[in-house]
Amino acid sequence: MAYNLLKGKKGIIFGALDEKSIAWKTALRCVEEGAQIVLTNAPIALRMGEINKLAEACDAPVIPADVTVTADIENLFEGTKEHFGGGVDFILHSIGMSLNVRKNIPYTNSNYDFMHKTLDISAMSLHRILQVAMKQDMINEWGSVVALTYIAAQRIFPGYDEMADTKAMLESIARNFGYQYGVKKHVRINTISQSPTRTTAGGGIKGFNGFIDFAEKMSPLGNADADQCANYTVTLFSDLTKMVTMQNLFHDGGFSNVGVTQPVIDQMEKQ
Amino acid sequence: MAYNLLKGKKGIIFGALDEKSIAWKTALRCVEEGAQIVLTNAPIALRMGEINKLAEACDAPVIPADVTVTADIENLFEGTKEHFGGGVDFILHSIGMSLNVRKNIPYTNSNYDFMHKTLDISAMSLHRILQVAMKQDMINEWGSVVALTYIAAQRIFPGYDEMADTKAMLESIARNFGYQYGVKKHVRINTISQSPTRTTAGGGIKGFNGFIDFAEKMSPLGNADADQCANYTVTLFSDLTKMVTMQNLFHDGGFSNVGVTQPVIDQMEKQ
Amino acid sequence: MAYNLLKGKKGIIFGALDEKSIAWKTALRCVEEGAQIVLTNAPIALRMGEINKLAEACDAPVIPADVTVTADIENLFEGTKEHFGGGVDFILHSIGMSLNVRKNIPYTNSNYDFMHKTLDISAMSLHRILQVAMKQDMINEWGSVVALTYIAAQRIFPGYDEMADTKAMLESIARNFGYQYGVKKHVRINTISQSPTRTTAGGGIKGFNGFIDFAEKMSPLGNADADQCANYTVTLFSDLTKMVTMQNLFHDGGFSNVGVTQPVIDQMEKQ
Amino acid sequence: MAYNLLKGKKGIIFGALDEKSIAWKTALRCVEEGAQIVLTNAPIALRMGEINKLAEACDAPVIPADVTVTADIENLFEGTKEHFGGGVDFILHSIGMSLNVRKNIPYTNSNYDFMHKTLDISAMSLHRILQVAMKQDMINEWGSVVALTYIAAQRIFPGYDEMADTKAMLESIARNFGYQYGVKKHVRINTISQSPTRTTAGGGIKGFNGFIDFAEKMSPLGNADADQCANYTVTLFSDLTKMVTMQNLFHDGGFSNVGVTQPVIDQMEKQ
Repeated sequence: MAYNLLKGKKGIIFGALDEKSIAWKTALRCVEEGAQIVLTNAPIALRMGEINKLAEACDAPVIPADVTVTADIENLFEGTKEHFGGGVDFILHSIGMSLNVRKNIPYTNSNYDFMHKTLDISAMSLHRILQVAMKQDMINEWGSVVALTYIAAQRIFPGYDEMADTKAMLESIARNFGYQYGVKKHVRINTISQSPTRTTAGGGIKGFNGFIDFAEKMSPLGNADADQCANYTVTLFSDLTKMVTMQNLFHDGGFSNVGVTQPVIDQMEKQ
Repeated sequence: MAYNLLKGKKGIIFGALDEKSIAWKTALRCVEEGAQIVLTNAPIALRMGEINKLAEACDAPVIPADVTVTADIENLFEGTKEHFGGGVDFILHSIGMSLNVRKNIPYTNSNYDFMHKTLDISAMSLHRILQVAMKQDMINEWGSVVALTYIAAQRIFPGYDEMADTKAMLESIARNFGYQYGVKKHVRINTISQSPTRTTAGGGIKGFNGFIDFAEKMSPLGNADADQCANYTVTLFSDLTKMVTMQNLFHDGGFSNVGVTQPVIDQMEKQ
Repeated sequence: MAYNLLKGKKGIIFGALDEKSIAWKTALRCVEEGAQIVLTNAPIALRMGEINKLAEACDAPVIPADVTVTADIENLFEGTKEHFGGGVDFILHSIGMSLNVRKNIPYTNSNYDFMHKTLDISAMSLHRILQVAMKQDMINEWGSVVALTYIAAQRIFPGYDEMADTKAMLESIARNFGYQYGVKKHVRINTISQSPTRTTAGGGIKGFNGFIDFAEKMSPLGNADADQCANYTVTLFSDLTKMVTMQNLFHDGGFSNVGVTQPVIDQMEKQ
Repeated sequence: MAYNLLKGKKGIIFGALDEKSIAWKTALRCVEEGAQIVLTNAPIALRMGEINKLAEACDAPVIPADVTVTADIENLFEGTKEHFGGGVDFILHSIGMSLNVRKNIPYTNSNYDFMHKTLDISAMSLHRILQVAMKQDMINEWGSVVALTYIAAQRIFPGYDEMADTKAMLESIARNFGYQYGVKKHVRINTISQSPTRTTAGGGIKGFNGFIDFAEKMSPLGNADADQCANYTVTLFSDLTKMVTMQNLFHDGGFSNVGVTQPVIDQMEKQ
């Protein structure tokens, strides 16, 4: 069901890889809600994924950009401005990749060059996007930026490892730049802390199935899925949430405020 | 602008006193968004306020209920069920009154009978409403309950006094019952922690203007007003936020995550 | 091992019931560290417990006081002042009792008279103690007050029920009065959020063994025990922590900042 | 006054620059409390500072180490092991430097090479120290690690800028490695979130005096100073706090849980 919540709004979606991606579903939902969008991802991700299918469904151009390269982001924003004839109202940052995790390197044996790269891709990329946006005056007054994160930024989940530290930094950047961009142009910046989600990216994390099952049992409403995350993100892009900024918003079926549940207690008693 | 976000939904609004009330504005916005509502308030508040004006604008019945009296809530729910021919999809709890604050009794000289009464009206009322609702199966599957709160539950604002402790308890009840009602019927329960707002109720708090000016200067987007709070509440009543539960959501222009701002620093340097 | 950390200090210990009590062990540790103390508990608890044994070991008078009765607290403080020839440097509040939990009444069927009583005993008692103390100028400059709490104030543990809401209020009172007493006399007030502990009081909570086992598996250092809590409390009564106030301090082997552990994941996979 | 709280313990203090340093004062207090220590800092800081004075007062060797260079840390630990004839019981990480801030580059114009360097020095250094320590089995069973941080990791203070994001990452590393080292060897890792402190390092932050004055007015007990921080750190190195781990502990006179104070309200009303 659609409500025209984003009618007339324009936005950029970072990070749609394939049909399972939260960014993919968010792109579709934004368009259903009346928005026009530009899609972007790293050149390598574009080659691996099926983004052209999405581009067609959304009637959206795809502009490649490596978020660790300032010039790429500048080029993306110039192309977007040209396409829309102006700035954008919303941006989704759905980008995360941990080199140490992907290479199965334990947290206590981290490679620091990899860690820098992870930070660059997964956290500093938000800063870079916002810094270039501010310089190019890319985001319209009262625009909305959402970045996806995970509760490992607050509590430790073994296996999530360096991505936890990276997400902690990402959330801080959202607050920090949320202050700067709020004061300057009423742009609001929030993070959504989403339930563990069976995406192609999430699948790379060791013990991920354990995460998901545990989270499901620990959430009174169960885990939030990618479609529901897309819906929630749409509300944050809409004009109905204009005064929400610098927040980390849990979209997790209640997981974050649960200490334990009866199903988990029952499971603990099994021999 | 309206989106039909609540088309077909039915709800109960507690606490609309007069045109400045957040509950008043939320009632209007819910109706604009396609909902049908029932209005309620304490008999004494109904006599003081102008709720009939609102009832007319919303085409809504008014059913008095003292939230400290279980029988009143039972009666309200029975009347509502009769009116709608069934249960409701959303409830707004916008109820708060501190006897010690109203009587200008300092926090360090609190009267404990008053404190019990304050707790009964302002925090336990949420429990009572939900308990009666669960017994009468009043809230439909995936229904949404929102209660209004204030950041004094986390950080001390002198003058807010016993209401801070009461709001802390209110937020805990939202989590606690959010777990119970989530498991039982997917009902989600959240609190919105709203900027200080110039309502008739808020006006009763000593030093309230100081609160508001300070909060305004400390919020990158300024203080959120009652209309904006109504908008935000509508998103939480909608189907787009189904997996958000047991959360305390700051709707405050960024205040909660700001340590200090330049305007405040500048002000600190004045002699 | 003792360090004379509390040499010359005087304090009051509320809530020592029997040898398993945290308050009992804290009393002993305070005396070992050079403090003089006064013991107090409700008249009924004194009859049930073996406090005279503790009183002897601590060379401390026992003064009964029902913490829901202002006159009792006044009497306790007068007796204490007489005994010490002056005020005190520290107070331990280790008091908690839930009538609804004790009577096995589910949270969704709470009796509100019981809830008021629970609040009175377990949360408002801290306010009452501090209010009487301030009026009688009972706590010396830079004194330290500690109240024991549990993480259910932040996250839901089914079975802890109304005590969760009560602890949320207790922690708020600690902040609120911590502000007032800090400004007035540099008295600091903190809560310690302790691991679930096998005390006689804790034993009354349904599913408590499940709590404890889960918490043990979720804590990198295991659950903190009562002896360790006594040690930690001693540091907060000492002069080495003078600038810590209005805090809720987790003493839990890491539980509070853990999302999941490998032992729990392993247990989740058992059929 | 000394208590022999650290009698027989051995530790390493990172980051003592001059007499104003928190690390300097902590080194002295540790020795007063019966510990033996090794001092370390970056070669350049050693040349600028007066560490030999401290080394003499503490009867401690100085082993230079650039915390961004793994080999330096390995060398430091080998030297330390040789000196003590074994591992250590505590480590203080008091290291922070922001290149963008030092060069007066606004947050919205950050240089990303500088940001990487800032992260390397100020956050990843904790990871590197702990990783090398674990590999060399440098920290004894139940050892304690403390890193200093600032509340800008949670709330924005303009001018603190990229250091806020860095501290957010540092605190996450403390949790993450706290889990790993806790499980492996009961080593506990915490951060102390200290009031703004007039140190030589702190002096480099723009608007720092504004920070300090505001924080002083917002703290019921006033700002915590470096001597008090040293005292608090000693308690965390002692055996009395063995079950405290993965925590961020505010040592700030109450600042973190205050929304506003009367002195600030009064100041806001000045024209």
